[in-house]
Amino acid sequence: MAVYTDFSDEEFDAFIRGYDLGAVLSVKGIAEGVENSNYLLATEKGRFILTLYEKRVDPADLPFFLGLMEHLSGRGINCPLPVHDREGRALSRLANRPAAIVTFLDGVSVRRPRTEHCGAVGRALAQLHEAAEGFALTRRNALSVAGWRPLFELCAARADEVAIGLSAEIARELDYLEANWPADLPTGVIHADLFPDNVFFLSHRLSGLIDFYFACNDMLAYDLGICLNAWCFEPDGSLNLTKSRALLLGYNDSRPLSRDEISVLPLLARGSSLRFLLTRLYDWLTVPDGALVVPKDPVEYYRKLRFHRSVSDVSGYGFDL
Amino acid sequence: MAVYTDFSDEEFDAFIRGYDLGAVLSVKGIAEGVENSNYLLATEKGRFILTLYEKRVDPADLPFFLGLMEHLSGRGINCPLPVHDREGRALSRLANRPAAIVTFLDGVSVRRPRTEHCGAVGRALAQLHEAAEGFALTRRNALSVAGWRPLFELCAARADEVAIGLSAEIARELDYLEANWPADLPTGVIHADLFPDNVFFLSHRLSGLIDFYFACNDMLAYDLGICLNAWCFEPDGSLNLTKSRALLLGYNDSRPLSRDEISVLPLLARGSSLRFLLTRLYDWLTVPDGALVVPKDPVEYYRKLRFHRSVSDVSGYGFDL
Repeated sequence: MAVYTDFSDEEFDAFIRGYDLGAVLSVKGIAEGVENSNYLLATEKGRFILTLYEKRVDPADLPFFLGLMEHLSGRGINCPLPVHDREGRALSRLANRPAAIVTFLDGVSVRRPRTEHCGAVGRALAQLHEAAEGFALTRRNALSVAGWRPLFELCAARADEVAIGLSAEIARELDYLEANWPADLPTGVIHADLFPDNVFFLSHRLSGLIDFYFACNDMLAYDLGICLNAWCFEPDGSLNLTKSRALLLGYNDSRPLSRDEISVLPLLARGSSLRFLLTRLYDWLTVPDGALVVPKDPVEYYRKLRFHRSVSDVSGYGFDL
Repeated sequence: MAVYTDFSDEEFDAFIRGYDLGAVLSVKGIAEGVENSNYLLATEKGRFILTLYEKRVDPADLPFFLGLMEHLSGRGINCPLPVHDREGRALSRLANRPAAIVTFLDGVSVRRPRTEHCGAVGRALAQLHEAAEGFALTRRNALSVAGWRPLFELCAARADEVAIGLSAEIARELDYLEANWPADLPTGVIHADLFPDNVFFLSHRLSGLIDFYFACNDMLAYDLGICLNAWCFEPDGSLNLTKSRALLLGYNDSRPLSRDEISVLPLLARGSSLRFLLTRLYDWLTVPDGALVVPKDPVEYYRKLRFHRSVSDVSGYGFDL
């Protein structure tokens, strides 16, 4: 649930005149994307998403995000394509915020993924990784291993409000992951947030990927660890082996995993659990009263972290070579 | 800002199979309508609005609202048309709530209406009143004069938290309006909530009316009082005489006002101010912590009430016969 920023008729008219999109037929705030204000825009030229970037997005990153969508779109990935204004720019301003218009993608996200969805996401993630090759810009992953300790320090003192012993356990986990985090795996552009709400399906076929606002450069297999966590656990907290197997086989079909990538996957999935545990913990402890966004439960990722710690190799995900 | 209710994939699939709308292309929660959960639905057959009716809407009123839209649509008013399911019903259920699908209307609501918008709304309101003639169902206006005192009693004790002396002033106003409220004016179906967000324009022409969930039977001229308040005041609280004159002339062009209607218009506008003052006051004092909806300022309608009390006849609205 988002839509934070509203704008005046005059601001919007001046903004939209900067584009060659014909007359505006409708503009509706949509409850999508936690970080930004999003509007569904219909004009004589088609349907679009208008995004106003709010304070959690660094404007300096916008050329990376918008350029990446353009690069991927040009290489066959069905993702939103930024619309250029009359001066050729993908980035404009509205209501005193950076703003962009991208094409609208048909498709429906699934709330409870089934096995076939997991397989399709694995394949799409591998295709995304390959299509992103050659993209000229880079963006450091601020939410990888080096970013976790500073985040933890912001909420260490209050972590036990969420679960007794959580603070000490995160501290031990951080020590371990910092000492053992792999370095020599294949890297590239990763999506870094490919949760079910960011994947569209039409008639059970994967039809598009959205929300590239966490994309960055990192180990490709780490992205797979994120998807394992996001797609393959059941509501009761248990891993669904059939789903994780489908995800990994789907990925491996399109981009074969190296022996090294396979062997550290449990560690990467464990790190990905800590990353989402920490950001959710931070949001949980700092959510302002009366906020429009209900923070997500950190405990879900605490459980996933513990699960991955118990996995000795990828057979624990149903994947065998 | 709304969208309160979410639903599972299975619930939605079962629901949509009840309609002959082809494959679903997208479903997005939209930030529109304070009372209900609204989704923009695109299918192979076109674009629609899916509404889940939340607890503030009495299910017994839904046949009136949906039937009215169908009646008006059939008589040339551009308003949402309920889509019937395969069994011929306009009303279905989703996520354990009454739910309906209506056609999507193109158009953009204006945030700061100009004079030409006010004239167009006056004409559209008169056309709506005439088109509604012959509609078989009726619905009492629970928010007319008889409903104001019970509402006041719920917030009288705390009204002075909003403005010192407000409680006593509302009490005096209620006494006066109850004693002087007119009875013998022409009645019919009124929209009762025709604020700028419920009126769409395309290229400066009025293109449609939405949100009939306050519609009821009452004095037609009372609806005009509501529109005077909703469309003709400037942000600084002053009436814009050019706008109110355009609204009244626009209405009178399509449905000439009787002498009696004209003479009591200041009283009806005053009553309409009290109605919105009371509902806003109630919402203001009862909004739960962490609510998704920011309540609207009651003081705006307190000022409008005082203004109308100072108006002796319709020349105070720029309207002369």
